Amino acid sequence: MDRFPQKERLILAYKLISPFIHRTPVLTCSSIEAMIPAQLFFKCDNFQKGGSYKIRGATNAVLSLEEEHKRAGVATHSSGNFAQALSIAADTAGIIPYIIMPGNAPPVKIQAVRSYGGRVILSESTLKSREQTLHKTIAKHGSTFVHPSNDMDVIIGQATMAMELIDEVEQLDYIVCPIGGGGIGAGTCLACLHFSPGTKVIGAEPMNADDAYWSVKKGSIQPSVNPDTIADGLRTQLGNINFPIIKELIQEIIRVEEDQIIAAMRLVWERMKIIIEPSSAVSLAAVLFNKDQFENKRIGLIITGGNVSLDHLPFD
Amino acid sequence: MDRFPQKERLILAYKLISPFIHRTPVLTCSSIEAMIPAQLFFKCDNFQKGGSYKIRGATNAVLSLEEEHKRAGVATHSSGNFAQALSIAADTAGIIPYIIMPGNAPPVKIQAVRSYGGRVILSESTLKSREQTLHKTIAKHGSTFVHPSNDMDVIIGQATMAMELIDEVEQLDYIVCPIGGGGIGAGTCLACLHFSPGTKVIGAEPMNADDAYWSVKKGSIQPSVNPDTIADGLRTQLGNINFPIIKELIQEIIRVEEDQIIAAMRLVWERMKIIIEPSSAVSLAAVLFNKDQFENKRIGLIITGGNVSLDHLPFD
Repeated sequence: MDRFPQKERLILAYKLISPFIHRTPVLTCSSIEAMIPAQLFFKCDNFQKGGSYKIRGATNAVLSLEEEHKRAGVATHSSGNFAQALSIAADTAGIIPYIIMPGNAPPVKIQAVRSYGGRVILSESTLKSREQTLHKTIAKHGSTFVHPSNDMDVIIGQATMAMELIDEVEQLDYIVCPIGGGGIGAGTCLACLHFSPGTKVIGAEPMNADDAYWSVKKGSIQPSVNPDTIADGLRTQLGNINFPIIKELIQEIIRVEEDQIIAAMRLVWERMKIIIEPSSAVSLAAVLFNKDQFENKRIGLIITGGNVSLDHLPFD
Repeated sequence: MDRFPQKERLILAYKLISPFIHRTPVLTCSSIEAMIPAQLFFKCDNFQKGGSYKIRGATNAVLSLEEEHKRAGVATHSSGNFAQALSIAADTAGIIPYIIMPGNAPPVKIQAVRSYGGRVILSESTLKSREQTLHKTIAKHGSTFVHPSNDMDVIIGQATMAMELIDEVEQLDYIVCPIGGGGIGAGTCLACLHFSPGTKVIGAEPMNADDAYWSVKKGSIQPSVNPDTIADGLRTQLGNINFPIIKELIQEIIRVEEDQIIAAMRLVWERMKIIIEPSSAVSLAAVLFNKDQFENKRIGLIITGGNVSLDHLPFD
C-alpha cells in the first residue's frame, strides 16, 4: 500500500478544494432500482461546477502548485470537460490557464472555455500539433503542464467524489465508475482503499473503446485504437501514473454496447429528470445489463457529468 | 378573506398528503441568476412522484373522500399528468381510479396510466365524447368525479407546493407560476395569502394560450380558443372554483412567446442539468424576458413537471 498515496493526502486534498467545489447530491430512483433489483446511489457530478467532476482534480492540481510556479500559469490540451474545469479552477485561484484546443473544436466549446477565463490557443487537430503547441506554450510562459487524467494531484482530486459518496452512504458493496483516461477510475480506487476497503470498484467501459479492459487483462497499457463510441469522455487511454493504481485495485472492468449506453441514459433522463452525459450512463448500463451480479447489492454509481449537446441527441 | 379556504385547511391538507408525496428540492443556479440579475429559487416538482405537482392535488382529493364514497372509486378525464397522478394517488389509497382517455392518446401515456393502476376507458377524442364517457362511468360505478384543476380539494393540494417553498425560502418578493387550468395558480395564491402575504404571485402564460390573461382583464372566464403552444399543460381554461381566487389574489399575468419558452427550457436543461417540461419553462421565461421588473428581487419559480417526450424535442 506504500506505493499509493496515503490517506492523509486525500484528506488534505478534500480540505483544500472543498471551498471551491460543490458537494453534489446523492440521488436515488425507486423505479430504476426495481429493475435490477438493487439499491442504487447516484453520485451526481453532473451538478458540479463546469458540469463535470473534472473541476475536482483541476482545483487540486492548481492549488497544489508551489508559489513560484503559480505566476507562470498552467497549461493543458483538451477540447472537453477538463478544458473548462482547468479554466475555472485556475481563474478562481488567480492563475492564468492556457488551453490548447484544436481549431476544429465546436465554437460553443471554445467560447465556454474563454467565458471561464481560459486563454485559448488554437492548434491543428492532430495530436502531434496539439502537443507541439502545448510545448511551445510551456516554453514561452514557463507554465506548468496539468494532464487531464495522468497526474497524481488530479487523480487525488477526483478521489474526493467517491470520498463524499462513501461519507454519505455506508456499506456499499460496489462503486461502478466509467473508465476513460483513468483519472476518476484511479481516484475512486484510492478512495475505497482508504475509506471503504470492503467496497469493490468496478470499471465500466464502452465495448467500442475497451482499451482499459485489455490493459488490465494484459498487465500493460494498451492504446485506444479508433475508439468509436457515443461516450466521448471515454475515448482516451490510461497513463503510467493512473494505470498501476487501477491495475492493482480495480475488481474488474465491465464492457457495454452502444445501445445499452443510450438505453441507460434515456432511462435516467426519463425517470430521474436529470441530464447526464453518455459517459456517465456507462456506469448504469454496466449494472442494468448484468443484473445477476448486482442483484440485491448496494451500489454507488459515479455520474461524471452532464455536458451534452442538445442539438445532437441519440434518442429517436 | 372569508370566502377563501382558511389557513387551517391548507395545514391539514399538507399533513394529510405529506406521507404520500416527495418534499421536492429548491434549486438555485448562479449563472442563470446573473442573467437577470436576481435571486431565483426553483421549486422542482419535476422530481415529484409521477413527474409533476399533480399528485399533490390528486392525493388530497382522494384522501378527503368520505368513507362511503371511497368504495365506488374516483373518475376523471385527462390524457396528461393528472391521469397518472390520480392513478397513483387512488391506487396508493386502495381506491379504484377510472381514467377516461381519448383513443388517439399516445400509447405510451395510456400504458403509463395503466402501470400506475389506472383503469383506462377509451373515448373519442372530442370533448363531448370524453364527457359523455365520463358521465356513463360515474353512473355505472357511482364514482366521484375529480376535476384536474377546478376542485377545491385539488386546489388546496396544489397549494402545498408553494407552502413548502415559502417554508424553505424566506422573504420572497415574487412567486411566478404557470397558469393553465388554474389549479396550481389558485393554490399558489392561497399559500401566499396565508403564509407569506408580502409575496406577490405572478401568473405566466403562453401568448398563444392567453385565456387566463384575458379572463383576469375582463373579469370573467374566457374560453381557451385554439391554443397553439408547446406548453401543452397550459392549453386548458380556468374554472368557476379557481377563477375567483386567481382574479382576486394574483398580481398580474405575464405572457411569453413560444421561442421564449423554448429558450428558457433550453437554459435550464443546459445550465441546471435537469429536465423540465415546456409548461414549467414558462415561469422562467416570464422573468428572463422582463428583467426590469425582476432585477435584484427574490423570486420563487414554480417548476411544475418534467414529463417530456424525448422523441420530440424542440431543440435544433
